[in-house]
Amino acid sequence: MASVFTKISTGLIPSYKIAEDDQYYAFLDINPLKKGHTLVIPKIEVDYIFDLEPEILAGMHLFAQKIAKAIDKSVACTRVAVVVLGLEVPHAHIHLIPMDSESDIRFSNQKLKLSEEEFKEIAESIKQNL
Amino acid sequence: MASVFTKISTGLIPSYKIAEDDQYYAFLDINPLKKGHTLVIPKIEVDYIFDLEPEILAGMHLFAQKIAKAIDKSVACTRVAVVVLGLEVPHAHIHLIPMDSESDIRFSNQKLKLSEEEFKEIAESIKQNL
Repeated sequence: MASVFTKISTGLIPSYKIAEDDQYYAFLDINPLKKGHTLVIPKIEVDYIFDLEPEILAGMHLFAQKIAKAIDKSVACTRVAVVVLGLEVPHAHIHLIPMDSESDIRFSNQKLKLSEEEFKEIAESIKQNL
Repeated sequence: MASVFTKISTGLIPSYKIAEDDQYYAFLDINPLKKGHTLVIPKIEVDYIFDLEPEILAGMHLFAQKIAKAIDKSVACTRVAVVVLGLEVPHAHIHLIPMDSESDIRFSNQKLKLSEEEFKEIAESIKQNL
């Protein structure tokens, strides 16, 4: 069965899309640690990021770099953190999280509750900065 | 002045080296969250990882992938997490952290105190699995 992220990248499940090409897809995390928290996935369904073919892994980080630069321009933050844990959804994904301090990226922190309007506004801003 | 990581990669400050090529250097974090916690740096001194030239960034993650696979073989863990925060040392670095649960990668956790013998043993094991 397709992973939840494959369902998102193929449009079966709606998402606040940031960017897409033939190999990668980026969208806002629906349970964000910070405004602008974005997930980057490869369209190929591989659980563990280090099991990706090297060229897919490298391309994923180049795709993520473009998104991170746009997040930096859209969201007030010191920098964008990169986190790959991957214990929950068995489909490799990079978290890009705007941060000001290390404590911002604790996954045990309370997630933000944003309105649809807020998600749309952030996604639009990041897209315009791409 | 050279960053502490440049001093490490050039040998001015000793480290438990895991691997090195002309562009990248990997060594054990001296204040590890878990046994096998490794740092990967580019030899070029750039503070923010997303300011790296794309080809340097991509190569850094490919170098990290080889190290992560060796860590996976050397240390009992569910997988190796990837974390880039970068608020402390102004020289881009990837944390590779063997993890079993999300709580393993909280940077506020007490760091492990390992003996020189333990560091050497872990470094040797990872190197042998490269």
